[in-house]
Amino acid sequence: MLILVLNAGSSSLKFNLVDMEEEKTLAEGIAERIGISEGFIRWTIQGEKGRLELDMANHKKALAAIMEQLKHTVLGEDQDVDAVGHRVAHGGPNFGDSEVITPAVLKEIEELAFYAPLHNPASASGIRTAQELFPGVPQVAVFDTAFHHSMPEYAYTYGLPYELCQRLGLRRYGFHGTSHRYVAERTAALIGKPLEASKIITCHLGNGSSITAVHNGHSVDTSMGLTPLEGVVMGTRSGNLDPGVLTTLMEQEKLDGPALSALLNKKSGLLGISGVSSDCREVEEAMDKNKRAKLAHDVLCYGVLKYVGSYAAAMNGVDAICFTAGIGENSPGLRSWICDRLGFLGVAINEEINGTRSKADRFISTPDSKVAVVVVPTNEELMIAREAKRLTSNN
Amino acid sequence: MLILVLNAGSSSLKFNLVDMEEEKTLAEGIAERIGISEGFIRWTIQGEKGRLELDMANHKKALAAIMEQLKHTVLGEDQDVDAVGHRVAHGGPNFGDSEVITPAVLKEIEELAFYAPLHNPASASGIRTAQELFPGVPQVAVFDTAFHHSMPEYAYTYGLPYELCQRLGLRRYGFHGTSHRYVAERTAALIGKPLEASKIITCHLGNGSSITAVHNGHSVDTSMGLTPLEGVVMGTRSGNLDPGVLTTLMEQEKLDGPALSALLNKKSGLLGISGVSSDCREVEEAMDKNKRAKLAHDVLCYGVLKYVGSYAAAMNGVDAICFTAGIGENSPGLRSWICDRLGFLGVAINEEINGTRSKADRFISTPDSKVAVVVVPTNEELMIAREAKRLTSNN
Repeated sequence: MLILVLNAGSSSLKFNLVDMEEEKTLAEGIAERIGISEGFIRWTIQGEKGRLELDMANHKKALAAIMEQLKHTVLGEDQDVDAVGHRVAHGGPNFGDSEVITPAVLKEIEELAFYAPLHNPASASGIRTAQELFPGVPQVAVFDTAFHHSMPEYAYTYGLPYELCQRLGLRRYGFHGTSHRYVAERTAALIGKPLEASKIITCHLGNGSSITAVHNGHSVDTSMGLTPLEGVVMGTRSGNLDPGVLTTLMEQEKLDGPALSALLNKKSGLLGISGVSSDCREVEEAMDKNKRAKLAHDVLCYGVLKYVGSYAAAMNGVDAICFTAGIGENSPGLRSWICDRLGFLGVAINEEINGTRSKADRFISTPDSKVAVVVVPTNEELMIAREAKRLTSNN
Repeated sequence: MLILVLNAGSSSLKFNLVDMEEEKTLAEGIAERIGISEGFIRWTIQGEKGRLELDMANHKKALAAIMEQLKHTVLGEDQDVDAVGHRVAHGGPNFGDSEVITPAVLKEIEELAFYAPLHNPASASGIRTAQELFPGVPQVAVFDTAFHHSMPEYAYTYGLPYELCQRLGLRRYGFHGTSHRYVAERTAALIGKPLEASKIITCHLGNGSSITAVHNGHSVDTSMGLTPLEGVVMGTRSGNLDPGVLTTLMEQEKLDGPALSALLNKKSGLLGISGVSSDCREVEEAMDKNKRAKLAHDVLCYGVLKYVGSYAAAMNGVDAICFTAGIGENSPGLRSWICDRLGFLGVAINEEINGTRSKADRFISTPDSKVAVVVVPTNEELMIAREAKRLTSNN
């Protein structure tokens, strides 16, 4: 069974072709600058990299060009994919699971643009494109929010007037759900405990970061909220702020909604504190000589540490802590900073193993650590492909 | 040594007269509706309650009327107080300790009105009044923020552009410092550990609520921030929100700064979620029949629980958890909700003792609980009196 995974942005289209026999990625790549000049497609197909300069007027042109490349390499001329899995940013209050795309589902995805004005219209465009190019091939939407649908009401409710929240759909939704779910499953397998009887804290730390409490396989809390701005400090996003900071900024700096949003989403976070970079690696490299870079790093580490503590409390314990995504997988310094302060939970890590680079799922805790600490490279595309398979293979 | 403790609001003046020999409150009360019609003063002097209807044009008239009552009862006609301790809401970035009031200190308190526009001008007015009425009597300012001055930079830094924070003084300050300090000292005494070698989490839960991590006697983190809006859900205050919630409200509801501030400070919190009341007792009474009241209660309990977990991580452990203030002292249900989920820390409470009303400092944990859990009625006035004594008795 061949599944094409698509992740459409407003001017980009990421793709992965996955052979589900062995869950093997046959091809992956991205078309960029769609609808803009100087477009190009980059790919790795069966281990070989390629690149094509190509102006693409829309997602359909991009997907057609991508399929052209696949047809000459991993796909036979007449071979079609068996299903398409689409990453969709926001599933709103109703989508608690992946969905086979019907006209009604597509309509609702478009209506959820209220919550994700940049992302959901792009997802919808990617879905329409795939429907046109692959008529008759089942399409599945996999929502970034769906895994968090299991949160109890007291965990997703904000302290605002109830009717206002109902009317505007203001609640914690959470994001990175596909990643949290994937690494939680891998973590349970690594520690040899059934997922449905385990307490796992997953730290997805990348350009965007979120931390999730996964109790018996269900997300019971997560650090991102209504939007992906809440939680720990990120590359250019502020993370948590006293709401009084925003009203102060509105009054002192005369900022309106869009200006405030731009400040908090684009100029804040690691970049804003450090003044060096939004990239955690560059911040870490500057840290020895630059106090603000050190501060930015420490603010991030401390923020993650506090979420780990709070989610251990939310689940009344923790069996395993998992680090994933760009920073989580590649910053031993951050992992040490955090784990060194979790002795009270019985956490102990092996610094040598923690310091060794690897692409593999691995323990960094010592054998006698009371809480397992693991690093698991995330694989959202595989999870999306699995969801597409699960929902279409019985049809 | 007799110390008068004053807490001036914009139209009120609270007073306590404390005999420092035995740290005994001789008189306490409040003048209300100062500068408005239908003013009155209520008091308890040596156990007897009294009340006087009196229109007071300003704080000076109010304090003169208060002193009139004291002179006929606990104070001799010619007896003066030895010092006056003033509660001051905001000490800004510079005041890390109580201060004997000099013209420079008073000027800075007035300038800090930027951070506390309602409270600091009232404090300054109270100080000027006391200076006029008690010429030559030393006056001491005790700041609500000062105890939190010891927070590490990574705990008080927001994920915003660094220069902007420097320019506007945007950082976590924290409040209720005098209360947190008082109950932390009492908690250390109760558990028989030196304060300077203990890890204590103090939960001041009242109409306003904040939680503090007190490590070796120093506040290392606290849930309120730049303003008293951050942290757990309060009577009418929202507590923590995704910053994206605020920009969404600005755009969807066309709210400006003052309207947003009014919504989040006056109409949110327990009142906003429950629709029943801002008073936790009334919310708890409605809980059996009203799902929204139950939700409001659970959101509060869960918020406190998560702070306890995160501060245990911030200190890499916890020796004692202390509940204080209106809700903390009087809601056994809330304390159970939280402590029942802290088994992973070794917390165990005695439900019978927890359920028994008392005005005394007391353990509610079992003797073999790994973490002590105590209830300590707060006494900010005594702490302010102690500070006034400490700073003036050597003069």
